[in-house]
Amino acid sequence: MRFDIFSLFPEVFDSYLNTSILKRAQDSGALDVHTYNIRDWATDKHHTTDDTPYGGGGGMVMKPEPLFAAIETVLGDPPPCPVILLTPQGRRFNQDIAFELANHDRLALLCGRYESVDERIRQHLVTDSISIGDYVLTGGELPALVLVDAVTRLLPGVLGDPDAAMDDSHATGLLEYPHYTRPPEFRNWTIPDVLLSGNHAEIDRWRRQEALRRTLNLRPDLLETADLQEDDIAYLKSLGYTPKNS
Amino acid sequence: MRFDIFSLFPEVFDSYLNTSILKRAQDSGALDVHTYNIRDWATDKHHTTDDTPYGGGGGMVMKPEPLFAAIETVLGDPPPCPVILLTPQGRRFNQDIAFELANHDRLALLCGRYESVDERIRQHLVTDSISIGDYVLTGGELPALVLVDAVTRLLPGVLGDPDAAMDDSHATGLLEYPHYTRPPEFRNWTIPDVLLSGNHAEIDRWRRQEALRRTLNLRPDLLETADLQEDDIAYLKSLGYTPKNS
Repeated sequence: MRFDIFSLFPEVFDSYLNTSILKRAQDSGALDVHTYNIRDWATDKHHTTDDTPYGGGGGMVMKPEPLFAAIETVLGDPPPCPVILLTPQGRRFNQDIAFELANHDRLALLCGRYESVDERIRQHLVTDSISIGDYVLTGGELPALVLVDAVTRLLPGVLGDPDAAMDDSHATGLLEYPHYTRPPEFRNWTIPDVLLSGNHAEIDRWRRQEALRRTLNLRPDLLETADLQEDDIAYLKSLGYTPKNS
Repeated sequence: MRFDIFSLFPEVFDSYLNTSILKRAQDSGALDVHTYNIRDWATDKHHTTDDTPYGGGGGMVMKPEPLFAAIETVLGDPPPCPVILLTPQGRRFNQDIAFELANHDRLALLCGRYESVDERIRQHLVTDSISIGDYVLTGGELPALVLVDAVTRLLPGVLGDPDAAMDDSHATGLLEYPHYTRPPEFRNWTIPDVLLSGNHAEIDRWRRQEALRRTLNLRPDLLETADLQEDDIAYLKSLGYTPKNS
């Protein structure tokens, strides 16, 4: 899968992309990332990429010309793939959108200064807008890396275990159960006996119930959309949960 | 404000921290970031920081000993500041939490492999758990940078304009209105006349209505908690909005 990332700070991407799973994904050919400096397409002497907003107010707004030129030069006109603006005014990124994006062969990512891209870029150049959460960041660079990371993990062959991506929090619709590893006792804090029982049916049941309990405690909103079985609901009710549709 | 960040990949932080607003915030003394490699506190020959999970299943789990040792050596025991684990099993980060965290002088951030930290670390070392969104990432490093970025923007003196942080999307509880800059006409696409009118009351009204309209179209859930005035609600109703509590 190929990502073309357009930014005013392309130098921030390399160190993350060259570490851990994303590096291995590139080495194996599953992932191909190209970064571009939007400033290279500014044609005036000062390489201007932003200007003051019409109508007044603080902050600067990214000008349309360099971004249109950058995208059309690199991708062609019209671009053959989705052009995604990372912006707080986008649909909110989640694991379902990550799966959706992983079906594409190529994605272009636009990192504006985070809240001030000329509206004509949104209307006539961008085909999708994505927000990674309800908070204010300096630019779209971290959101672009979040998107590349989350999507790359879903590509065939990137994680060693083909089921690994399915077990994670949010992939199942629930928060994940607690994990324990050696030592079995650390500062007098022991691990749950069931994990040493060797009884896999019991372990699975304990993990499922812990995932349900944790989700109920920390993120009950997720239970409304999770795929719950009858015994899940019975267990949740024993903890005081009332299904919204009952 | 000081951040102490604990990670297995401390090399990924520098390039982002040394760019743009975060670099200026460090140069001015408003921001002080220290990164540490958890592996430096692993005491065995192979510097082991993770191990297989009790009870079976894929993936590796971060061991408790190196993390406790790292935190207690750097911060003291008990740590004098919040110790925040970046994990999908946390409260979901938003702009309100960014304001809350900006009140601290110091924060410690723990980047585990994203979903598999020994539960005893969560129970006995960590004082807060934060998730940046409902998606699966490789580690807590990008979430830590997101948190540092969002919080640093709120520190006194970091943004030039003291009101700049208040105008952004999510700071007002609404998505932001559209921005336009020069040229006034680009490929026959013009800007709204009102922005050239010089009538600031009209411009303010247009911007407020556009912010309301965009929020209604893209993120109607935000209207339930936004601070709406009577004329806001009247305008939203003219667009077909029905308040939930009416």
